Amino acid sequence: MSSEPRVTFSTGLRVRYSETDQMGVVYHANYLVWCEVARTEFIRTFGASYADLERQGLGLAVTEANVRYHAAARYDDAIRIEVWVDAVGSRAITFGYLVWRVGEDGDQRLASAWTRLVGVGTDFRPRPLPEDLLVRLRAAAGR
Amino acid sequence: MSSEPRVTFSTGLRVRYSETDQMGVVYHANYLVWCEVARTEFIRTFGASYADLERQGLGLAVTEANVRYHAAARYDDAIRIEVWVDAVGSRAITFGYLVWRVGEDGDQRLASAWTRLVGVGTDFRPRPLPEDLLVRLRAAAGR
Amino acid sequence: MSSEPRVTFSTGLRVRYSETDQMGVVYHANYLVWCEVARTEFIRTFGASYADLERQGLGLAVTEANVRYHAAARYDDAIRIEVWVDAVGSRAITFGYLVWRVGEDGDQRLASAWTRLVGVGTDFRPRPLPEDLLVRLRAAAGR
Amino acid sequence: MSSEPRVTFSTGLRVRYSETDQMGVVYHANYLVWCEVARTEFIRTFGASYADLERQGLGLAVTEANVRYHAAARYDDAIRIEVWVDAVGSRAITFGYLVWRVGEDGDQRLASAWTRLVGVGTDFRPRPLPEDLLVRLRAAAGR
Repeated sequence: MSSEPRVTFSTGLRVRYSETDQMGVVYHANYLVWCEVARTEFIRTFGASYADLERQGLGLAVTEANVRYHAAARYDDAIRIEVWVDAVGSRAITFGYLVWRVGEDGDQRLASAWTRLVGVGTDFRPRPLPEDLLVRLRAAAGR
Repeated sequence: MSSEPRVTFSTGLRVRYSETDQMGVVYHANYLVWCEVARTEFIRTFGASYADLERQGLGLAVTEANVRYHAAARYDDAIRIEVWVDAVGSRAITFGYLVWRVGEDGDQRLASAWTRLVGVGTDFRPRPLPEDLLVRLRAAAGR
Repeated sequence: MSSEPRVTFSTGLRVRYSETDQMGVVYHANYLVWCEVARTEFIRTFGASYADLERQGLGLAVTEANVRYHAAARYDDAIRIEVWVDAVGSRAITFGYLVWRVGEDGDQRLASAWTRLVGVGTDFRPRPLPEDLLVRLRAAAGR
Repeated sequence: MSSEPRVTFSTGLRVRYSETDQMGVVYHANYLVWCEVARTEFIRTFGASYADLERQGLGLAVTEANVRYHAAARYDDAIRIEVWVDAVGSRAITFGYLVWRVGEDGDQRLASAWTRLVGVGTDFRPRPLPEDLLVRLRAAAGR
C-alpha cells in the first residue's frame, strides 16, 4: 500500500525578444515551445535524452495540447516552468505544466497547460515506448 | 423563430520550411499561428480589421487554446483553415478551427482547434468589444 | 553576343501577428523566412519543387545570409518579395531579394537581402545540383 | 597611449526542438535570434538592461545583419555565443558574434555574424543613445 509522490521538475528560461508580439507580451503559441523545453529537460532526468530516443527511430508526437493563459509574460522576464507526468496510458502519456514568472515578491502563475503525446516510429505510426522509460514515467506520475 | 446558419470562413496557406521540425513535419505550436492567420482574415470580413481594432486601443487576448492533432502537415503542403465563431459570451468569444491538407483526391483533416479570446485594453484589463462587432460575431455564430 | 535578361520573380504574403515583436514591427529574423518563401516559389517555376529535390536526398543549405533593413514592416501589411538568381558558381548559388510593402500610392522598399546556398546531401556534405536545374538557374541569372 | 582590450562576453543556451527544421538542423534564421539573446545579456552587463532602455522610449533597431554558416547546430546541442562590440559610430553600433557548439573535445565554430544597430525612438526615427551607455560600449570595443 505504498504510494509515491508525483515528481515535479522545474526548468528556467528568460523571455527572448523574438518571443514577444506587438501587444508587448509573449505570443501565445510560444508557451507550447516552453512546455517542450521543460519536457525535454524532464525526460533527460529519466536517463535517456529525447535526442537519444529519436536516434533510435522513436519519436513522441503531440496529439493534443491545451493552454490556459492567466497573465502575460513579458520580454526579459525570468520564467520557471514546472512539468510533471499526469498520466501514463497504454499508448499515450499526458504531461502537465505550470508556467510562472519568477519575482522577488513571489512567483506569479502565467499559464497552465497539458499535452498528450504518443510514441511514433519514423513512419509516424504509433509505436510503444521502451518499457524501462515507461516504468520511470509511471513512477514519476506517482500513485 | 428564425435561424441563421453558422458562417464558416476558409483561408489558405502553404507550409513554410521554417515551420517544419526535425521530425519532418510541421512543429505543433505553428498550428496556433495558422489559426490566428485564419481568424484575422475572418474578422476582416466583419468590416473592421484586427489591425484597426488595435489602433483603437483594443486587443483580443487569447485566454485558452486547444489543439487536437490528427495527421501531420508537411513542407510545401497546401493548407486550408476553416474558422467559425463557436460562442459569443458577455466577455469571451470562442472560435473553432479545422485545419485541412488540400489534396487532389479530397482534403485530409489535420487538426481541430478552438481558442477563447477576451477583449482587452492596452493595460491588458478586460474591455468590452464594440457592440457592432459583437452583433456581427453573434450573427456569424448562427442561432 | 546574345544576352538574356535576368528573371525576377515576385511572391506576396501578409504579415502575421506572430511575426511582430514588441517594438510593433516585424522581428528582423523573419525577413529571412520570407526570403525563403519567395525562393521556394521561384525554384518551383524551374520545374522541380524544392520538396522534390529533398525527396531525392538533395538539400540547399544556406551558407551566408545578409539583410539590410530600410523600413519596418508592420502587422497586416501586404508584402511583396522579389527574388532573382544573382550568381551561379560551380558550387554556390546566390539569390538576391527585395522586400516591399505594397501600397496604394506605390510600393515602399523595406529590405534588401542576399543568401548564398550550396547543394548538400543528406550527410550535409557538398553535392552538385542536377545539371538541368543549374542550366535553368544560369539562364534565370541572365548574361 | 593606453589601450584597452576588447571585451568578449559569452552566453549559453541549448537548442530547442522548435528551432530545428526538416533537414535535421537548426533553421538558419534562428541564429539571429541567438545573437540577440547574447546581445541582450551583454548589454545587461553595461548596467542598463535592454528592457530598461525600451521603458525609456529608446530602442535599438537592427539595420543590417550578416551570418556566415560554417557547420550545422542540432537539436539538444549545447551552444555558446560570443558577442563583442565591433564598432561604435556616431549613429550605429556594430556587434560581432561567434556561435560555438560546446563539446567535450573542444568547441566547434558553427557561425560568424555581425549586426549593425541604431538607436531609435518610439516613432522609429534615429535617436542618440545615452552618453553613459555609449562610453561603456566604446570601452568594451577596446582601442
